[in-house]
Amino acid sequence: MNEAALTLEGWYALHDFRLIDWTKWNKADDEERAHALDELQSLWSDWTKAEEEKRGSTAVYSIVGQKADLVQFHLRETLEELNAMEHAFNKTSFAQYTIPTYSYVSIVELSNYMAKPGATGDPMDNPEVAARLKPTLPKSKHICFYPMNKKRDLADNWYMLSMDDRRAMMRSHGMIGRSYAGKVKQIITGSVGLDDWEWGVTLFSDDALQFKKLVYEMRFDEVSARFGEFGSFYVGNLLTPEKLNDIMKV
Amino acid sequence: MNEAALTLEGWYALHDFRLIDWTKWNKADDEERAHALDELQSLWSDWTKAEEEKRGSTAVYSIVGQKADLVQFHLRETLEELNAMEHAFNKTSFAQYTIPTYSYVSIVELSNYMAKPGATGDPMDNPEVAARLKPTLPKSKHICFYPMNKKRDLADNWYMLSMDDRRAMMRSHGMIGRSYAGKVKQIITGSVGLDDWEWGVTLFSDDALQFKKLVYEMRFDEVSARFGEFGSFYVGNLLTPEKLNDIMKV
Amino acid sequence: MNEAALTLEGWYALHDFRLIDWTKWNKADDEERAHALDELQSLWSDWTKAEEEKRGSTAVYSIVGQKADLVQFHLRETLEELNAMEHAFNKTSFAQYTIPTYSYVSIVELSNYMAKPGATGDPMDNPEVAARLKPTLPKSKHICFYPMNKKRDLADNWYMLSMDDRRAMMRSHGMIGRSYAGKVKQIITGSVGLDDWEWGVTLFSDDALQFKKLVYEMRFDEVSARFGEFGSFYVGNLLTPEKLNDIMKV
Amino acid sequence: MNEAALTLEGWYALHDFRLIDWTKWNKADDEERAHALDELQSLWSDWTKAEEEKRGSTAVYSIVGQKADLVQFHLRETLEELNAMEHAFNKTSFAQYTIPTYSYVSIVELSNYMAKPGATGDPMDNPEVAARLKPTLPKSKHICFYPMNKKRDLADNWYMLSMDDRRAMMRSHGMIGRSYAGKVKQIITGSVGLDDWEWGVTLFSDDALQFKKLVYEMRFDEVSARFGEFGSFYVGNLLTPEKLNDIMKV
Amino acid sequence: MNEAALTLEGWYALHDFRLIDWTKWNKADDEERAHALDELQSLWSDWTKAEEEKRGSTAVYSIVGQKADLVQFHLRETLEELNAMEHAFNKTSFAQYTIPTYSYVSIVELSNYMAKPGATGDPMDNPEVAARLKPTLPKSKHICFYPMNKKRDLADNWYMLSMDDRRAMMRSHGMIGRSYAGKVKQIITGSVGLDDWEWGVTLFSDDALQFKKLVYEMRFDEVSARFGEFGSFYVGNLLTPEKLNDIMKV
Repeated sequence: MNEAALTLEGWYALHDFRLIDWTKWNKADDEERAHALDELQSLWSDWTKAEEEKRGSTAVYSIVGQKADLVQFHLRETLEELNAMEHAFNKTSFAQYTIPTYSYVSIVELSNYMAKPGATGDPMDNPEVAARLKPTLPKSKHICFYPMNKKRDLADNWYMLSMDDRRAMMRSHGMIGRSYAGKVKQIITGSVGLDDWEWGVTLFSDDALQFKKLVYEMRFDEVSARFGEFGSFYVGNLLTPEKLNDIMKV
Repeated sequence: MNEAALTLEGWYALHDFRLIDWTKWNKADDEERAHALDELQSLWSDWTKAEEEKRGSTAVYSIVGQKADLVQFHLRETLEELNAMEHAFNKTSFAQYTIPTYSYVSIVELSNYMAKPGATGDPMDNPEVAARLKPTLPKSKHICFYPMNKKRDLADNWYMLSMDDRRAMMRSHGMIGRSYAGKVKQIITGSVGLDDWEWGVTLFSDDALQFKKLVYEMRFDEVSARFGEFGSFYVGNLLTPEKLNDIMKV
Repeated sequence: MNEAALTLEGWYALHDFRLIDWTKWNKADDEERAHALDELQSLWSDWTKAEEEKRGSTAVYSIVGQKADLVQFHLRETLEELNAMEHAFNKTSFAQYTIPTYSYVSIVELSNYMAKPGATGDPMDNPEVAARLKPTLPKSKHICFYPMNKKRDLADNWYMLSMDDRRAMMRSHGMIGRSYAGKVKQIITGSVGLDDWEWGVTLFSDDALQFKKLVYEMRFDEVSARFGEFGSFYVGNLLTPEKLNDIMKV
Repeated sequence: MNEAALTLEGWYALHDFRLIDWTKWNKADDEERAHALDELQSLWSDWTKAEEEKRGSTAVYSIVGQKADLVQFHLRETLEELNAMEHAFNKTSFAQYTIPTYSYVSIVELSNYMAKPGATGDPMDNPEVAARLKPTLPKSKHICFYPMNKKRDLADNWYMLSMDDRRAMMRSHGMIGRSYAGKVKQIITGSVGLDDWEWGVTLFSDDALQFKKLVYEMRFDEVSARFGEFGSFYVGNLLTPEKLNDIMKV
Repeated sequence: MNEAALTLEGWYALHDFRLIDWTKWNKADDEERAHALDELQSLWSDWTKAEEEKRGSTAVYSIVGQKADLVQFHLRETLEELNAMEHAFNKTSFAQYTIPTYSYVSIVELSNYMAKPGATGDPMDNPEVAARLKPTLPKSKHICFYPMNKKRDLADNWYMLSMDDRRAMMRSHGMIGRSYAGKVKQIITGSVGLDDWEWGVTLFSDDALQFKKLVYEMRFDEVSARFGEFGSFYVGNLLTPEKLNDIMKV
């Protein structure tokens, strides 16, 4: 069985991180600011509608620290739709008050490491699997995003391990994840061939401390300890259109 | 036999990635925008004509995410022609609405690892080989580009392996590529001595998910697992002059 | 016992580093400068009040060298409060004369490596522990900040060591720290899952040379020598509202 | 014999890479552009005169791709002269239409690895050696520049090898270089203590493909395979004052 | 004996590298330029006076290449004084024509590796030692600056070596340095806990080629070959107020 068969893919994902250009925003007059927010709110209604119609999902968070002020996390059926969403956003006057800082292109992925070896049938027939591949994003109080690789460094080379070794380690890893059930919800998106890291991990929780607890506990697990390579971590607070209006009030 | 004799080279290649300066574009008036698009379309006609006359080939894609909005992928007989294309583009008013973000200079390359040891005659006499060295770029729905190296890291040093070992690994690698025939078309360009990585890989497919499947499957192959080093991945959607006009409509 | 249980967390922390845009500041007129400083002083009063009411703590230092001119180091109960502080700052006219250069999101952390194995009871019932988790930041003459990781590099992999080995090394490390008691005060903040490094170290001292002595001595300790990975170091001088006014006088 | 005695040095070298600021250039009026080109041509005449008088040498090339549009490669007797050339260029109005992107400071170097062990006398008495240390730069159609180090990484540490091992490897390396005689001319400049890499390699050829052939063949040689570390590669086309005027014509 | 006791520290050091903003400078009128130079010369007089009064020392050099145009290297008794010098400079109109590119914060350091094991008494009582800790910077024709670390990489970990091994290697290293006595003067500044590298090395010589000879010869010494990690190298020519006025003449 080839390795590519070991993953199931759902919706394409775009994480779009931006700073607010506060100098420009503070200089704008009330009318310009109102217009900019109106245009954003109008797009946001479209996102909400698409989510209601199960054509995709969107979560918007405020990011803490200077790496970004906002993240839009969009899921859609195709890369063309995500691209169109970028173009629509860039044409709003709100976008002119933002500075792009980072983005991530990936696709919702379920790994088959957990599958029972003897399982038969198309996993997509399983409604639970289908729901996880095309999820409605949680609207938890907090988000955490980071990209990651599996290491390929001399003796610590994930991709040179046998399937059995990898499966055993992933199971142990999964057990830690499960122990956070109800506290942290995790969306794994695969980005091999799509962006610079191999996976994006997006965590949702009502208690940001759980992000630290979970990631720290996993770091001692062999699959992370020996094989995990991590990019930048972004952490933030849930936004609604109302909260964003509050933040932008000058 | 020296190693340099193991590759065949065709047209020079330039990948030119750019962002749209949306703030500037949105501020321009209708006439300025129309003029900018006209100038681009006029260049694009030249590119099409050159492709029809087999003097080169060009593919233009919209890139997803913040790394770029557009990529022009040009093939020409000489570096001087590619350089002249850059200068012509930079003089258009359209270019003034773009921000260069990344480029890649390389040359279409066929590796001879697959050649039968006993083969005789000039491979350029083979019309299939000639066609692959001076190809008309596919106009598939999606593009994927990434640069790569073969690793030279202590025990994992590709360039210290024997030719036999390298050939065996490349064959296995090639078998994976072939299993995607009809799904993914691949253009390999060599850039040793021309740009910062050793190769550029450009994939074309009507189904972007195949990029992920292919690259992920290959990653478990020893030649990638132990010896592959990868740069940034860019993924995008086919553009025609009409589609670009649509995107740029404010 | 899982590893995550080994740490205690207190207030969330934000280190916010900024340059002064001196060209803009020098160009502003006296009234604009006075207004900008007034707005900053007004925020600063809020920070002082929060500190007095034990709702958090703030220290402001001037940084030496071009990496930053100012650092605000804020502690608060929640990420939302820290985020609101960023937004409030960004809306001041003073902020328009600054350029963000680096920030760090973390949470005050006490490691349990030092705990006696047989200790019982909730450590949070210990008033000394509680005070260290929600500290009032020292107002020493000098600050030193740097982020750090524990290495995971082949044979030097902290996270693959046994708990006993880690505890023994941390104890020895702690002994060095203790020998600087009275000279250097140290605040450790954890950032696994929150920012790009695993810990932030903030040192306070009335003698900046002690930072060098302490960090250099620790570097020969196995836990740093073999396992420490360090980011950028920032060093600076205490600011009060009056000192900042002096610095900003043109 | 100390190692430093193993090299002979000639003229100091400055590679100065710049982008054209096309937006600014396109916005300038005809008179401004003519004036800018006149000022550049006037400097260029000085460079030509210095070359004729054997006081130095200069080559100017157009670079392909976004890393630069132009490179000036200057050789002079002293660092002060190179510095003065930078200042003179920066005062021209042409310079105001360029954006510096990379530079390299080094000194023409001949390695003594090839010297016969029994050789006597001052190598500078050898006119061929003197000519190579103070060369007139070729005006070939193409240039290739890259900086490089010899690796110092655990078992692959060039500087821990014995002189005999280094000499044997350098000889084999030199043999490859010689096999390109007549096709590629190579100027090695040393930069230990002068810039960020240990050497700069500048290749000249009328056929850019030879850069790829040469560098690729050498990469399999142990001295490159195990010990070579390479920076960015720049490749370009010869410029004359006339060609530059053509390129800049709007 | 703890390791921190092995170093003696003197004055704090700030290296401040800046580019000239030539476009802005060329656009300024004669009066603005004269005013800017006057303000700089006035500061420079203060620096000279402080040097005469042994309250510190300053050297100003012009840097070759695009990494910087100027470096100010200041020594002072405290971090507060260095910080005040930055603020004073940033308030001059001259500063508005410069772009900060790099800085380095450190403290003059003498290593005790060379001390005789049986030596007694306070080394600060030795006038030669005191002079080296609070030196008047040479005004040689050329400067070379680079920051460096001692490596901590698996088998090549300086900080895991025994004191005896380190002392033996440092002695051999010192012997090379001494062989350049009269040709190169070296100021070592320590930056552990103060900036991003562990040491800054500043070399002064009337012959820039000696920088290359010295650094290259040392690179074969085990302490550099196996344990040296180097940052960017800056090289330049001595400036006096008069020479700077000449350079800035448009």
